[in-house]
Amino acid sequence: MTTQPPELELRETISQLTARVDALEESAGHHRLSIGVMSGNLDTTIAAFIIALGAVAYDMEVDMFFTFWATAALRDPKKSTPKKLLDKMFGWMLPRSSHRLPLSKMHLAGIGPKMIRSVMQSRGVKSLEQLMKEAAELGVRVHVCEMSMGVIGLKQEEMSDYPGIDYVGVGSFIQMISEFKQVVFL
Amino acid sequence: MTTQPPELELRETISQLTARVDALEESAGHHRLSIGVMSGNLDTTIAAFIIALGAVAYDMEVDMFFTFWATAALRDPKKSTPKKLLDKMFGWMLPRSSHRLPLSKMHLAGIGPKMIRSVMQSRGVKSLEQLMKEAAELGVRVHVCEMSMGVIGLKQEEMSDYPGIDYVGVGSFIQMISEFKQVVFL
Amino acid sequence: MTTQPPELELRETISQLTARVDALEESAGHHRLSIGVMSGNLDTTIAAFIIALGAVAYDMEVDMFFTFWATAALRDPKKSTPKKLLDKMFGWMLPRSSHRLPLSKMHLAGIGPKMIRSVMQSRGVKSLEQLMKEAAELGVRVHVCEMSMGVIGLKQEEMSDYPGIDYVGVGSFIQMISEFKQVVFL
Repeated sequence: MTTQPPELELRETISQLTARVDALEESAGHHRLSIGVMSGNLDTTIAAFIIALGAVAYDMEVDMFFTFWATAALRDPKKSTPKKLLDKMFGWMLPRSSHRLPLSKMHLAGIGPKMIRSVMQSRGVKSLEQLMKEAAELGVRVHVCEMSMGVIGLKQEEMSDYPGIDYVGVGSFIQMISEFKQVVFL
Repeated sequence: MTTQPPELELRETISQLTARVDALEESAGHHRLSIGVMSGNLDTTIAAFIIALGAVAYDMEVDMFFTFWATAALRDPKKSTPKKLLDKMFGWMLPRSSHRLPLSKMHLAGIGPKMIRSVMQSRGVKSLEQLMKEAAELGVRVHVCEMSMGVIGLKQEEMSDYPGIDYVGVGSFIQMISEFKQVVFL
Repeated sequence: MTTQPPELELRETISQLTARVDALEESAGHHRLSIGVMSGNLDTTIAAFIIALGAVAYDMEVDMFFTFWATAALRDPKKSTPKKLLDKMFGWMLPRSSHRLPLSKMHLAGIGPKMIRSVMQSRGVKSLEQLMKEAAELGVRVHVCEMSMGVIGLKQEEMSDYPGIDYVGVGSFIQMISEFKQVVFL
């Protein structure tokens, strides 16, 4: 701005610019998406996996974080594990697997989810379980909130065999919020 | 760092920096906001349009993506279209227009929404329909998830005349997630 | 690209690059997180504060924006204020404080929240009120939507003594959406 800087100053300017671009690139989040899933309804869980698969098709890396009620969507109905009474009670009240998730609206004592599933099938939309299978094949990572499982009384032994599923602290989700390009919370 | 590079190397450095800044600018999302609307409640739909209008006032470009239950908020009660029985049944159960959206809490068999609307009016807050009109005037774009309409049995012929409303695949929303600065999901 | 530019052109290129990096840094959002809280359920409010505290631990600055039903989570049960009838009615129907928040699922006429609170305590998870206290100590800022309070009939005199709590227009939240790195809406 003032007098023309000598070449040394020019180099200094470029080196500072490079450092700033380094920092920006790190904070830009490398085209990664995190999907927080909390409500554990059939409709929101389907939406979460449709978004996940779509983002993979757009070359984003996708990490899903299942917390609170949504952890029950990952129960495997074929597995069971000995539990204390309180945990058993939670277990009875929570959906036994993705097949039993309620609708957020028009649940109608369980008729709503059956209707939606049947209509989706007749219209060629993939079922939640097919979406999950496809997500696994395409490398969508599934993380489950350990603290939530503890509160709700779920054990790792009764959870889905989703490939690479892991049980993590809240810090993992925060790291995604902090580092990824985008976060969507359902 | 090592020896002083010749001017040619300096040019090379600058050209690389430029390419990285190009890429960063592309991924920065150009100050655009996408609002995903799914729940289709009166309160969340009002919040969505208040956020949309606020963001426009902050010079953001705003695209809204209506999916699942929220698609019913865009039904035009004056229009109807011949339907098969199952679609008719969905049609009866879903809100006939934005005027019939339920509250997520304190719905009280329909008294809640009336109370909220009346209180908002008496306190000078715009109604949902006024917010939608203003959003249209200010260039907020409204996209409707085709797949959701198919599942729920809504036809384009019975939808709102919101200017420029279009019916798109999930890919459109994913593109927003991937490219925009910010995504909010209600 | 064409002929070798003279040093003056080099300086011009660098100055343009610097301006673009300036703009990118401004839009990158400086590692700040905004958490919009709307639903006012016990589970979502706990999740909001756990995310807030986690983000602070990751060196993010955190601003929470309480809107609509969630404003009731910040009522102080020890305070009361004279109100008109309609506002009184809302006041009776809304939770009197964070201690009375409902669960989004398994509310079971109030047994659900008590169960969750008791299980969380027995498993060493902090209560909502402890999380709020810690958030205050660690500098998480709490903003409350003035318009929502007006609609619901809450007065500032009956609200929590959360340090630095302020009552703001929607514009404050939009500014966060526009400027921060990340927004999560619960």
